[in-house]
Amino acid sequence: MDFQQQAVAAREAARTLGTLTRARKDAALHAMADALADAEVELLAANAGDVARAREAGTEEAIVDRLALTSARIAGMVQGLRDLAALPDPVGDVVRGWKLPNGVSVTQVRVPFGVVGIIYEARPNVTADAAGICLKSGNAALLRGSSSALGSNQVTVAALRRGLESVGIAPDAVQLVIGGREVTGDMMRARGLVDVLIPRGGAGLIRAVVDGSTVPVIETGTGNCHIYVDEAADLDQAIGILLNAKTQRPSVCNAAETLLVHRAVADAFLPRALDVLAGAGVTVHGDAAVVAYSDAVVPAGPDEFEGEYLDLDLAARVVDDLGEALDHIRRHGTGHSETIITTSKAAAKRFTDDVDAAAVLVNASSRFVDGGEFGFGAEIGISTQKLHARGPMGLAEMTSSKYLVEGDGQVRA
Amino acid sequence: MDFQQQAVAAREAARTLGTLTRARKDAALHAMADALADAEVELLAANAGDVARAREAGTEEAIVDRLALTSARIAGMVQGLRDLAALPDPVGDVVRGWKLPNGVSVTQVRVPFGVVGIIYEARPNVTADAAGICLKSGNAALLRGSSSALGSNQVTVAALRRGLESVGIAPDAVQLVIGGREVTGDMMRARGLVDVLIPRGGAGLIRAVVDGSTVPVIETGTGNCHIYVDEAADLDQAIGILLNAKTQRPSVCNAAETLLVHRAVADAFLPRALDVLAGAGVTVHGDAAVVAYSDAVVPAGPDEFEGEYLDLDLAARVVDDLGEALDHIRRHGTGHSETIITTSKAAAKRFTDDVDAAAVLVNASSRFVDGGEFGFGAEIGISTQKLHARGPMGLAEMTSSKYLVEGDGQVRA
Repeated sequence: MDFQQQAVAAREAARTLGTLTRARKDAALHAMADALADAEVELLAANAGDVARAREAGTEEAIVDRLALTSARIAGMVQGLRDLAALPDPVGDVVRGWKLPNGVSVTQVRVPFGVVGIIYEARPNVTADAAGICLKSGNAALLRGSSSALGSNQVTVAALRRGLESVGIAPDAVQLVIGGREVTGDMMRARGLVDVLIPRGGAGLIRAVVDGSTVPVIETGTGNCHIYVDEAADLDQAIGILLNAKTQRPSVCNAAETLLVHRAVADAFLPRALDVLAGAGVTVHGDAAVVAYSDAVVPAGPDEFEGEYLDLDLAARVVDDLGEALDHIRRHGTGHSETIITTSKAAAKRFTDDVDAAAVLVNASSRFVDGGEFGFGAEIGISTQKLHARGPMGLAEMTSSKYLVEGDGQVRA
Repeated sequence: MDFQQQAVAAREAARTLGTLTRARKDAALHAMADALADAEVELLAANAGDVARAREAGTEEAIVDRLALTSARIAGMVQGLRDLAALPDPVGDVVRGWKLPNGVSVTQVRVPFGVVGIIYEARPNVTADAAGICLKSGNAALLRGSSSALGSNQVTVAALRRGLESVGIAPDAVQLVIGGREVTGDMMRARGLVDVLIPRGGAGLIRAVVDGSTVPVIETGTGNCHIYVDEAADLDQAIGILLNAKTQRPSVCNAAETLLVHRAVADAFLPRALDVLAGAGVTVHGDAAVVAYSDAVVPAGPDEFEGEYLDLDLAARVVDDLGEALDHIRRHGTGHSETIITTSKAAAKRFTDDVDAAAVLVNASSRFVDGGEFGFGAEIGISTQKLHARGPMGLAEMTSSKYLVEGDGQVRA
């Protein structure tokens, strides 16, 4: 099947998916989980092949680690599908409703997008995760995984499709999109057949999808997340939040990447902070003012305040005041999660008003900006764009809406 | 100023706009209205020039009519700005909020997009209308009007900017984007500087913007709107709704373009309907079954069921059952507004479940699918896409959101 045929088959499957009851979708999720669990041996074998090929090709070990599956990781994928079954169904939820003066009733209800394309990199667990989220939200999924995980993805998708068939749902609701670079191009230009594209991966992948697509894209983004320690900060809180936001899981997008310290508290805060960070194995890349506090601080290069380390590294700078911190964040931020530590209501208000990001935090760790922490139960990614969804995206964010307009013969005057 | 400089200036203006109180924005809208009213003579003169140039260039009269301003039309533009001042401010509205188990509070609030680009065709009234909607929703507006309306647009924008300045708001909140085709290209690729693009105009314009943009686009679309008269229809209601949806204002996107009639009621319905339509000056383009009812029916050509007439023309077809009507709508519909006339709850449910459109109507005229009729007070367009907003877009749809996450030192375990 070429991509066009796959997309047409997905649309046809989506037509039914959109009207399934929650009970049928939950039964399908459990059947998908069962089939995936049953395929464990086959999946581990296919994955071992993928891993061997990646090592032969000289892939770096960090990426091989993302690619590798274990029994525990597969159990996680299976449990993820079962957890989705326990969540409320977003489809059919009434967003709002009212009556027109002439008695016509207007009701805005959530409906699935239809066909969702996911373009992602090496992690094969995304395959089950994305398929499950799409199914629960009533969407057909076209999964464009990495060629490096092809064997694992094929076994996973085959199992998920067996699960769907076993409960009488068209297996084309979940399809793997295979082929060269030109297939990704076909997918990105399939406006009218694919309703939404969600890239999941590094900045390069996301940029390529955003630039090349005519299909609407939801950008799940990179996070150059800042912590600004205000002159009115509780410094104990600042130490705790900084350490947590930087080191609790440095490889994720909501981890802190840049520290900004108000000059008035630099003497009191930075020596303590640098000590604690060094103790946690964090390398600090500082401007001249920060370097002055410790020999362990590496002088920050010219581009050091851009982008993400995604590792135990932190850029740091002393600022003259809140205004300078806001300007810095506006220039270098990626619109993900930005934090102020302050006891001043006025400073907190100015910061939350001015900062243009998916999440703005006051005296809390940016690691809370996450679908799981927010209580969404499932998360397809964290949107850093402003259209449709911004911040953690759960099941509701995987839906569109439709107006139902009901009358008894009313016409417009 | 080149486009890049304009966009940077708009971003800077947007930073302030996003934090203005409603009172200041309403004062600005009244000041813009006053300045536009004061510029009436100048605007009529500039518009007369635009109209003369359009006639010289051989522009068809329907387009010249859209271009032409009168004192009454200018008064409408002025009143439109004042009406916006009377509407609630969407910015700062709490969408939802909750507490995490550890006491951290999460609040999702509406915030402006930032910089909105509007690309539109000949109607110069869109200039004031779009500028006002953007201002009320806290967004800076980059207005890319048609070169045919350049004189009118320049006078309008200059007046609106004088209004902004008179109340101390940066005039770069409203800017006209001038230049050749390459400037439109710059605007469509200004991702990061422009937050959203909204094309307003014909299908060709919208397609070009969708295809050429890396900036997220909200598609305000064409409407090939169907009316399906079910076997269980109240035929008096069907006649009234058909006549209203087709003839009350045939040039707009929510007018009916195609009639589908269940075979079981064709004998009872079509002779009456064709009579009433003929009496209202409507030319019916029918399939063979419809042609059989009247000599006045023109045989429908092969592409007759695609696209919009936007005039006193209607395509018509007899279908065997509801399923065939649904298939027809799925194949030919543009996802705008689709109507069923029926007294059967089961038929209504099947229709509203299956039809994939911004609005699905039961026993009511599709002319109600409109921001004004819905009570939104203002409308930037009717979205036929599924991302962000679907259906009539009021002020709330001109906003994004931001999560405020507030704690007292909480960190993630």
